[in-house]
Amino acid sequence: MEDEQSQRPAGEPAAEPGPAPELECKNEDGVEDLEDPESTAGNGISSLEQPLLKRSPTLTASHLAIVGAKVSHIESLDYEIIENDLFKHDWRSRSNVEVLQYIFLKWAMAFLVGLLTGVIASLINLAIENITGLKMLHMVGLVREGRYWAGFLYFAGVNLALTFVAAVLCVVFAPTAAGPGIPEIKAYLNGVDTPNMFGAPQLIVKIIGSIGAVSSGMDLGKEGPLVHIGACLANLLSQGGEGRWRLRWRWLRYFNNDRDRRDLITCGASSGVCAAFRSPVGGVLFALEEVATWWRSALLWRTFFSTATVVVVLRGFIEVCRDGRCGMFGEGGLILFDVSSVTVRYHLGDLLPVTIVGVLGGVLGALYNHVLHQVLRLYNLINAKGRLAKLALALAVSVITSAGLYMLPFAVPCTPCSAAGAAADFCPTVGKSGNFKKFNCPDGFYNDLASLLHATNTDATRNIFSTGTAGEFRLDSLLIFFAVYCVLGLITFGIAVPSGLFLPIILMGSAYGRILALLLARFVHIDHGLYAVLGAAALMSGSMRMTVSLCVIFLELTNNLLLLPITMFVLLIAKTVGDAFNPSIYEIILDLKGLPFLEPKPETWMKDLTVGELAAAKPRAVTLQVVEKVSTIVAVLRATPHNGFPVLDRPRPGVSELHGLVLRQHLMAVLRKRWFLQEKRRTEEWEARERFSSTELAEKAGSIDDVQLSPEELDMYIDLHPFTNTTPYTVVETMSVAKAVVLFRTCALRHMLIIPKFQGLEISPIMGILTRQDLRAHNILGAFPHLANKRKVH
Amino acid sequence: MEDEQSQRPAGEPAAEPGPAPELECKNEDGVEDLEDPESTAGNGISSLEQPLLKRSPTLTASHLAIVGAKVSHIESLDYEIIENDLFKHDWRSRSNVEVLQYIFLKWAMAFLVGLLTGVIASLINLAIENITGLKMLHMVGLVREGRYWAGFLYFAGVNLALTFVAAVLCVVFAPTAAGPGIPEIKAYLNGVDTPNMFGAPQLIVKIIGSIGAVSSGMDLGKEGPLVHIGACLANLLSQGGEGRWRLRWRWLRYFNNDRDRRDLITCGASSGVCAAFRSPVGGVLFALEEVATWWRSALLWRTFFSTATVVVVLRGFIEVCRDGRCGMFGEGGLILFDVSSVTVRYHLGDLLPVTIVGVLGGVLGALYNHVLHQVLRLYNLINAKGRLAKLALALAVSVITSAGLYMLPFAVPCTPCSAAGAAADFCPTVGKSGNFKKFNCPDGFYNDLASLLHATNTDATRNIFSTGTAGEFRLDSLLIFFAVYCVLGLITFGIAVPSGLFLPIILMGSAYGRILALLLARFVHIDHGLYAVLGAAALMSGSMRMTVSLCVIFLELTNNLLLLPITMFVLLIAKTVGDAFNPSIYEIILDLKGLPFLEPKPETWMKDLTVGELAAAKPRAVTLQVVEKVSTIVAVLRATPHNGFPVLDRPRPGVSELHGLVLRQHLMAVLRKRWFLQEKRRTEEWEARERFSSTELAEKAGSIDDVQLSPEELDMYIDLHPFTNTTPYTVVETMSVAKAVVLFRTCALRHMLIIPKFQGLEISPIMGILTRQDLRAHNILGAFPHLANKRKVH
Repeated sequence: MEDEQSQRPAGEPAAEPGPAPELECKNEDGVEDLEDPESTAGNGISSLEQPLLKRSPTLTASHLAIVGAKVSHIESLDYEIIENDLFKHDWRSRSNVEVLQYIFLKWAMAFLVGLLTGVIASLINLAIENITGLKMLHMVGLVREGRYWAGFLYFAGVNLALTFVAAVLCVVFAPTAAGPGIPEIKAYLNGVDTPNMFGAPQLIVKIIGSIGAVSSGMDLGKEGPLVHIGACLANLLSQGGEGRWRLRWRWLRYFNNDRDRRDLITCGASSGVCAAFRSPVGGVLFALEEVATWWRSALLWRTFFSTATVVVVLRGFIEVCRDGRCGMFGEGGLILFDVSSVTVRYHLGDLLPVTIVGVLGGVLGALYNHVLHQVLRLYNLINAKGRLAKLALALAVSVITSAGLYMLPFAVPCTPCSAAGAAADFCPTVGKSGNFKKFNCPDGFYNDLASLLHATNTDATRNIFSTGTAGEFRLDSLLIFFAVYCVLGLITFGIAVPSGLFLPIILMGSAYGRILALLLARFVHIDHGLYAVLGAAALMSGSMRMTVSLCVIFLELTNNLLLLPITMFVLLIAKTVGDAFNPSIYEIILDLKGLPFLEPKPETWMKDLTVGELAAAKPRAVTLQVVEKVSTIVAVLRATPHNGFPVLDRPRPGVSELHGLVLRQHLMAVLRKRWFLQEKRRTEEWEARERFSSTELAEKAGSIDDVQLSPEELDMYIDLHPFTNTTPYTVVETMSVAKAVVLFRTCALRHMLIIPKFQGLEISPIMGILTRQDLRAHNILGAFPHLANKRKVH
Repeated sequence: MEDEQSQRPAGEPAAEPGPAPELECKNEDGVEDLEDPESTAGNGISSLEQPLLKRSPTLTASHLAIVGAKVSHIESLDYEIIENDLFKHDWRSRSNVEVLQYIFLKWAMAFLVGLLTGVIASLINLAIENITGLKMLHMVGLVREGRYWAGFLYFAGVNLALTFVAAVLCVVFAPTAAGPGIPEIKAYLNGVDTPNMFGAPQLIVKIIGSIGAVSSGMDLGKEGPLVHIGACLANLLSQGGEGRWRLRWRWLRYFNNDRDRRDLITCGASSGVCAAFRSPVGGVLFALEEVATWWRSALLWRTFFSTATVVVVLRGFIEVCRDGRCGMFGEGGLILFDVSSVTVRYHLGDLLPVTIVGVLGGVLGALYNHVLHQVLRLYNLINAKGRLAKLALALAVSVITSAGLYMLPFAVPCTPCSAAGAAADFCPTVGKSGNFKKFNCPDGFYNDLASLLHATNTDATRNIFSTGTAGEFRLDSLLIFFAVYCVLGLITFGIAVPSGLFLPIILMGSAYGRILALLLARFVHIDHGLYAVLGAAALMSGSMRMTVSLCVIFLELTNNLLLLPITMFVLLIAKTVGDAFNPSIYEIILDLKGLPFLEPKPETWMKDLTVGELAAAKPRAVTLQVVEKVSTIVAVLRATPHNGFPVLDRPRPGVSELHGLVLRQHLMAVLRKRWFLQEKRRTEEWEARERFSSTELAEKAGSIDDVQLSPEELDMYIDLHPFTNTTPYTVVETMSVAKAVVLFRTCALRHMLIIPKFQGLEISPIMGILTRQDLRAHNILGAFPHLANKRKVH
């Protein structure tokens, strides 16, 4: 059964964020299957050894997860079509005009999501490029005057201030805006709603925070946050805004359901990826491969429409900003790696070194996942100490980053421009983006490490990816760069600022690729820039385990189709190698946060268990009669946190039939409206129809404590006929859990009813009710420990 | 219920192809719900007005479809996991080594499919380029000597001979190899097995026939056939070859099930598209968007692996053939349109003409679909007259094509090379592929229409797509070209040779784009080659209604990422416009052939009907007892063509429980093995296990007439416990048809059992059984005509 107390629509502001860990919603009396949240969270985060979210794996496990470093109640989403009388009437009475309105609105929303994501991405880029540019200009000026310490203080000070802005926003206003947000989007599209994830505060904090964090030179990207921004936009558009300021436009009522919102959030996530990499097809495939759980061809088209809009917006933005009309903004932030100008050649004989790149990339990626997992656990302990601890952690990382970036270039010698074969007119470059940074070197010399470290992360990637520059970077510089970014990548990700994982891994991977290129230079003659691209791809695939979408993103980034087969090859190898060690980084984070993600494949031992056995291990399902006393319903709603109740009917004496399933939110709507009957009778269809609009029924449930009823009212009756979904999905008790899991996931269910094989008189027509938690392998193994042994056989 | 008499494994050779229309399998006595096939087919094709496959739409509609111009029985596929005792034991007893074998084999198969598809595609290209090249060389020689009539006779004669080879092979050996094969693959992946579709004869005929047909200069492509070739390869590999020559390797037993074969055929289809367009991502997306019904992330990776292999093979092939080592073979057949060398520029202001391209493309595409539909109906009447009629039709089309291609260039004047701004060293070109064909013109002049008509279709497309050639083609030449290819495209597709739809539509579309470019030249300045590309995209999208996959295919074809947003835009508009008129061409063909394709979305009126009502409109389900008499089983198998039978159990007197569902193929396996019991008893689990291997149970059913039993044997019993799938998917009678359809399709079912709301004593525990035919909108409307009126409201 589900216990979801947090009944606000997704995206409402957090109620008074107190010291973490804290339950956002109070535990209710009489909820027997909900563990004490204090002990849960308290134990969970007291030690590095124990799981963060300690919970005995039981079938009735409560819906708790770590959301923004706090333990919160989470809720499942209703993707099933609730076929009750009122819904059917609403659907039947929809005119053709309304159907057209709906279709038009669906497309208009997809367009708006793309448009706004594109505009916001452009503005973020603009801000980052300008802030970083000004910062670097001044810092380089100080260095050229020989005032090294002043340069450092200026550099570190500005970075600290920028980090402070980002972290304070995150800590105070929207703790859930920290990190990339992609795991939560993944969970949402799998049917789990994490509270306060896709609202206006998150959107605003994510935008400003992302600008601050990226400009501060920390080792994080704007890619993950952009995906989250797209999802927030989609959610806000679909519900017409936020909380009190919600637009209650009539047309918007079509979108007040979880299904349409899911589709729109998928569009938002694709738009975000597209905006991050200017990769429209890659964005769609990313959503398909990594983010979405349910997919249909219609969605392919719609997400593609969104990403196409994003690309057009970005293109328009570049046209506007051409010729330096946008300050320090070049095309830098948008065209990440344009290597199409150089013809890269490779042959079948190069497969061996490329295999090495893939295998090592897979190992490194898996290792990165492992270490990052440990670091995140440690950080959760620190973050749980309170807001100041979070802030201090973020600022400490900023200082370490500044120190590393500023000081390390002094450790390497200057390289003469002639050695790199660079033309005199752009070596060394001073004060603008380019490959050969002068920094502390005399004229005619450049500092290769400064070229990488003193730039925005995207510029650094462009430099390291650039082709035809085999001699530009020294091995020791690259080793330092790689080491620095390994450390920074691991310590930066978990802090309380919006941060993406893509760019840190790309930077690490490209350095790794270049290092390999230098080491193997004697044997093979692939371009070093290509090695960098392949290294980045390998590490991405080794850590994130995506294949097709990564490949297409790289294809669209490098703008070079010739690289496709070789990139594919590297990706496949790295993923295979990585899979041998541990799950993907997103799965690790999902697990760490305790989000109940439904895996695509059932475990093999599930074939040996029937849903009847599962139901027997659970408390009896709480059922209602089809015409029920108000007091009973109130008592049930108070006593249980369940969201769906089987409704029984007694057409003849002794015969009990399953009538359907009624949702908590509909019961609450009836209670709030006080639609009570004096006597126990079945109402006519029009009676309920006159009182309830589909908009009211679509509202989330809210708390039962807000409804105050008089004793007279409690003594009256409610007719559940109009509200009961008469077509819930059912399984017979003999169904194997393996097949039930497939049914549950493919049909995107929230509740599944178990009916007995034989009913007969005086036998309950319902054996139990299954939800997401009951079908998770971890929870089943808790209730049936003997299955864990079988599991090991295969 | 299903009535599938054709029980051979997919891909066995047709039994004695007689004069069409003919039922491939004899109608059986006692099959009451199967209509008389003679009247069915006879009436159906006697007139253009009537549907080809005349069948009263009823729930018990028989599984008949037009397969290769003949009316044949088709069969549904078992994608559901049949959880019976024997299966469970087989799965439990699999060692880790066997699991690894299976995984290894899965990948090895995907690799082999890609490898073989790549090699075959390369060889087909090589053959076509060489045959066409030699033919053209000689023909041009005759023209230059002024021997125009000799040139024509030679040209037409060679074309006729090539067509003859292709058509004879198709007509005599593999009628199902005609056409593209994509609709049948689509149906297969939707769960419908068309007989004799994916076997060795089809593969061989498709390869040779495709070479002949394309070399003969007819207006058809090798793209569709390549997709079919990929699917044939996948099917043959998965079952270890064909019929008698089947490899019975132990490892292959893992693949003797419909699920793994489905995955492999998906890989084959993607490989085919990839080989056709050298577009690996496009291939995967084509399979995802257009061909496959069920998709999962794991499949994305596997298909991508296959297409990656294809690309590597093609690349190796091009490297081998560089420097003219492969005769007349250039890179022509493989790199279709390489326009990346020219920087194409366009601006936001160009959106208006581009919109026109899209809208007109959508209209033209829909019109093309409509006319082609009519032509195909007419052709089916002709093809049904017999083999000679088929052959004559193909040859007639060949002569018409030859006449058009050869004679029309004489109708246009020669253009001076200087006017086109072409360099003197490649204008006019003689005897080799190139833009400026001399043909009948004097030196310094070229014939622009000959440049388009006297080339392979791919060369023609490359010429018309080429950029920076605004003045090369005259308006009247382009109009003639467009008109010719409209007519040829319509009359060529339905003839009895392997033919693809892609290239004819691309040719038509590119001409349409160029014409628009010339007409709009005064207002806009987009490159004419780009217009041709956009026109082709618009027409493709207007006819085939694909979006993302087409866009990626065009992206990979043109090798130019800058074209992406504008291509997207055109595709979206053309698809939207086309959808307003009629369904996509593949859906039209599926409908024409009568293949029972399950649509992704249920009709809205299905919400008003329950499965109980559906069951009531059907004959009662034929059930078996869990220990049943042999004679009863034989009688049932003889009397009905059903493929699944509910099995009932009587644990206590008066109580009848649903035990599960047993498949016809398993009953046949028991009958063939004569595993009978003397008395009526339940066997131990090991008894059946000792007698039946999983390989035997995986065999298709075969005919009941092949089993001869003695009267003593008929008097014995069979225990169905070990064979019964105890976990069939069930729905309660109150479930709406809309939700049942979703369940049926998303879980890829073949049978769905309806159980009553209340059972009680002496009530049958099973109300009915639903199959694909029962859930098709067309059939339901036949049984419930009043719903058809409701349908019109929305």
